[in-house]
Amino acid sequence: MTQATDRPRIRLKPKANARGLRHGFPWVYANDIVADRRTRKIPAGALAVLEDEKRAPIALVAVNPESKIMCRVLDRDTDADLNAEWFETRLRRALDMRERLFDAQYYRLIHAEADGFPGVIIDRFGDACVIQPNAAWAEAHLETLTDALVAVTGVTTVLKNASGRTRGLEGLDDENQTLRGKAPDAPLPVPMNGATYMADLTGGQKTGLFYDQRPNHAFAARLVQPGAQVLDVFSHVGGFGLAMLAGGAGQALSVDGSASALELATRGAEASGFADQFQTRQGDAFDVLTKLSEESAQFDVVICDPPAFAPSKQALDAGLRAYERIARLAAPLVKPGGYLGLCSCSHAADLGRFRDASSRGIGRAGRQAQLINTGFAGADHPQLPQLAESGYLKAVFYRL
Amino acid sequence: MTQATDRPRIRLKPKANARGLRHGFPWVYANDIVADRRTRKIPAGALAVLEDEKRAPIALVAVNPESKIMCRVLDRDTDADLNAEWFETRLRRALDMRERLFDAQYYRLIHAEADGFPGVIIDRFGDACVIQPNAAWAEAHLETLTDALVAVTGVTTVLKNASGRTRGLEGLDDENQTLRGKAPDAPLPVPMNGATYMADLTGGQKTGLFYDQRPNHAFAARLVQPGAQVLDVFSHVGGFGLAMLAGGAGQALSVDGSASALELATRGAEASGFADQFQTRQGDAFDVLTKLSEESAQFDVVICDPPAFAPSKQALDAGLRAYERIARLAAPLVKPGGYLGLCSCSHAADLGRFRDASSRGIGRAGRQAQLINTGFAGADHPQLPQLAESGYLKAVFYRL
Repeated sequence: MTQATDRPRIRLKPKANARGLRHGFPWVYANDIVADRRTRKIPAGALAVLEDEKRAPIALVAVNPESKIMCRVLDRDTDADLNAEWFETRLRRALDMRERLFDAQYYRLIHAEADGFPGVIIDRFGDACVIQPNAAWAEAHLETLTDALVAVTGVTTVLKNASGRTRGLEGLDDENQTLRGKAPDAPLPVPMNGATYMADLTGGQKTGLFYDQRPNHAFAARLVQPGAQVLDVFSHVGGFGLAMLAGGAGQALSVDGSASALELATRGAEASGFADQFQTRQGDAFDVLTKLSEESAQFDVVICDPPAFAPSKQALDAGLRAYERIARLAAPLVKPGGYLGLCSCSHAADLGRFRDASSRGIGRAGRQAQLINTGFAGADHPQLPQLAESGYLKAVFYRL
Repeated sequence: MTQATDRPRIRLKPKANARGLRHGFPWVYANDIVADRRTRKIPAGALAVLEDEKRAPIALVAVNPESKIMCRVLDRDTDADLNAEWFETRLRRALDMRERLFDAQYYRLIHAEADGFPGVIIDRFGDACVIQPNAAWAEAHLETLTDALVAVTGVTTVLKNASGRTRGLEGLDDENQTLRGKAPDAPLPVPMNGATYMADLTGGQKTGLFYDQRPNHAFAARLVQPGAQVLDVFSHVGGFGLAMLAGGAGQALSVDGSASALELATRGAEASGFADQFQTRQGDAFDVLTKLSEESAQFDVVICDPPAFAPSKQALDAGLRAYERIARLAAPLVKPGGYLGLCSCSHAADLGRFRDASSRGIGRAGRQAQLINTGFAGADHPQLPQLAESGYLKAVFYRL
């Protein structure tokens, strides 16, 4: 670990927005930096002092010369030492908010930049945490981070999930690891919104469960009346379907392409006491939606929570067409007076565009709609105000 | 009442968007209409058949030749009769959604266009309803509407509030009226989010209470820890403050310019059992915020819910500066690690602009922030997807 005084210095070009960085913008792009020979030799994950064009210090940053985002701000204090106390202070601060907001210890504990840990995700599942260290600086400090995490939360198990796509860009491997304790040999039960979900911490997607949809699951659950028939398309481990059963639905049908996700959803239904009310259909969602239409199936509530159809600007037009198509295929499956919830986790499709595509699809299906609710990711997924435009998750709920 | 067959016909110009109207757009602007002598003579509030340029019928509309929005779509069926059944069907449909979403009968029952009643607002307070018939067509059918409302909901009291600013444009008077039952001679207790609010149905603003902030009140209540000190600026009858006391706050200070609103807030605190924990300060909010800063007062949670600073496009720049100023004055009053909620009910300031102004104000106060939640009006304030951009209410919650 470098001593504060030896830290390399990185200088901004005059055109760069030093003021924005001083006011909390968290990233420095490579083309805003005076890239001399020394700068280029800084290894990925090293710490450096960012300076403005007049060599006045701005912040302590983590460097990755290979990435377009060459520096990520770690601390306003350029002498800060990334020791146990540094990690514990930030973890404690993050924990304080989650403990206010949630009754049980199941939440996203660290949401990267906004929680002061650029590129790092930590999800908590009771006594276990899963870390995604998707930045080289975090991998370099993983031991200190893990110790601090155990000290602050008291968890006994800490796993590292190395499947993040950005790890490659940071020069990191993709090997999962058990950092503390013992990896659970079975999926863990996770209580949310009155249901029990099964989270596979070692074999599942990302950290095993998505907490971000929690408030939207809760809203969907409020829409069902006792005995309602509901459809959950792109269900993953049962997100909306199980929450709606907990809200009183009579029957839920979950559709997903992944047999293993549906297997976990079914186990979640059993653990929640809804085994008899829960059905699954594996297959391509577009095909299943078409087939259900041919069968003239109709539901009181239909939710579609697809993967990111517009993950990048280049994919935006095709993505919006896909969202419109989902809406067009799903709307006929909603009973008159029923509800349709449509979600997007695409960074590139902002709320307005996504909502317009969805509304257009509903219109093309010949249905009139009221927009009754717009939801985002839960508060355990905070954002930096400077990056708020990039809020990826949106959920729009219509009554048809 | 005109018979369906005698209804005047109103023709769209070829350039008008007939397709949009067929797909659910609810308004026709005066300059999209072929304004012949007969059209100009149609009295405000009359029903007419809207036709496209080829004289094919589009919809039954309510006409007001004096308004920029000259026609408002009432029904796709141009022969529809606005009889008891017509009103009851729409009221029943609106009621069904509210009964799903709310435990008690306190909500906005009809939210204008999105609930199929252009220009009409109906708020429900248990056994009483307050109608704002802000369009001439509704005033003309007020008796049928009132009968239907009593038939569908079973309420015993129906009041008419005629203070809506658009009534003048519609050629309507501003006289309040008791349509059924007896106007309550004291403010009514309204249960929301665990607190009791006092709603003055006859003397208060609009319909006596604002239901739109309910989900945002609920979120603020989740942020407080037992004993927390909270500040509610532009409190009206105690909206955020009482909800946060119900959420466990130890002390709430409510600030408003209106002595009568603060009087109702205090009575609400008494009715909720928080009399000892509730304080008020009457005055200009900007002045009070400045004064509290001079006193070095700090709170665990601060909420500012001002009136619309940017009610129109012309007022946008000045409005955004006012929102920034509110944020700059409020941020220093938040303890380190505390929370700041900022609201806007300005149509002209969209979410992005309002959020940026708020974030800028926080930055200018020298505070760093996480954005943890974005909220809108509750689901009893639905929107037409075609008018969704105009969603007026936004609430952004930061942790500082």
